[in-house]
Amino acid sequence: MPYVNIKITREGATKEQKAALISGVTDLLRDVLDKDPATTFVLIDEVDLADWGVHGRSVEELRQS
Amino acid sequence: MPYVNIKITREGATKEQKAALISGVTDLLRDVLDKDPATTFVLIDEVDLADWGVHGRSVEELRQS
Amino acid sequence: MPYVNIKITREGATKEQKAALISGVTDLLRDVLDKDPATTFVLIDEVDLADWGVHGRSVEELRQS
Amino acid sequence: MPYVNIKITREGATKEQKAALISGVTDLLRDVLDKDPATTFVLIDEVDLADWGVHGRSVEELRQS
Amino acid sequence: MPYVNIKITREGATKEQKAALISGVTDLLRDVLDKDPATTFVLIDEVDLADWGVHGRSVEELRQS
Amino acid sequence: MPYVNIKITREGATKEQKAALISGVTDLLRDVLDKDPATTFVLIDEVDLADWGVHGRSVEELRQS
Repeated sequence: MPYVNIKITREGATKEQKAALISGVTDLLRDVLDKDPATTFVLIDEVDLADWGVHGRSVEELRQS
Repeated sequence: MPYVNIKITREGATKEQKAALISGVTDLLRDVLDKDPATTFVLIDEVDLADWGVHGRSVEELRQS
Repeated sequence: MPYVNIKITREGATKEQKAALISGVTDLLRDVLDKDPATTFVLIDEVDLADWGVHGRSVEELRQS
Repeated sequence: MPYVNIKITREGATKEQKAALISGVTDLLRDVLDKDPATTFVLIDEVDLADWGVHGRSVEELRQS
Repeated sequence: MPYVNIKITREGATKEQKAALISGVTDLLRDVLDKDPATTFVLIDEVDLADWGVHGRSVEELRQS
Repeated sequence: MPYVNIKITREGATKEQKAALISGVTDLLRDVLDKDPATTFVLIDEVDLADWGVHGRSVEELRQS
């Protein structure tokens, strides 16, 4: 019954890459903690660069500087 | 002062259905824990099928198989 | 496959009350959106009064003033 | 290494306002807890008015009544 | 700069198992999306069985029935 | 009606420091977005060092190496 939330910057992650994250995290939880894939939720959030801050600035700003 | 976050797959939930979730959860917290509706937050997130994984695969994939 | 997170202040909610929240939210999602209870996750977080702020002050402070 | 998530209603917050939130929160964590801005994440989520409930109703409904 | 939150039921996960989850998820994000481990946050939350609901009941109840 | 969640490593943050974070974030949201302090929630989560990963390792491990 794990619930995993992955937040990444919105930078063109493909469906194949998202599928790889979902299967990879599910396998990891099965292998490490014997968690059942049937009740392992993995949710991916993509966040706009203007909405993700680090170093006190948005990633959008940082990328433009 | 409860904060409730409801995440559902993006599958056409109507405004009326969302309103029913908001009022239902607020009433529940009032009835069970005597929480004040005026300071009960209920936030609904709709998640794309390609971004929600279960069984190690995205819901989008599962629905197509 | 809904995921619901309920955050409440840590003020002695009993197991019975938490069970009532879990079953109430699960029933609501079944009734409103026809969601399967078997894959509806409801997680409850209790937050210390010193860690929950409103009006710019912690609930602990507000209760003492 | 703080992680801060700010959820606000989607009501036209500008990039400049978001930048002010990011820098303000980062400075606050540096000043209060001596946290390094280089590893302080600030994520902003804008939530549609129909998806944010208070008083048992959506903000959208409340604004129209 | 990914942020990953893993929620699991509190059932005795060891530090070694948590370390394996942290390194596994970090490697996965590096391999799939070329994310820098130095700015990949992985946070693990353990949730009491009475606070995690599925099937409309708490895991604690389900385990006792 | 903002909701802010601040996650920090559990390293002895005092009540006074938490109060400073709560008032600082509330003031910031009032000043930048004219948000009402009366309905601004600020929740602080402290996370054990073994449960927070960066560089593919837990902060606890990193601090010991």
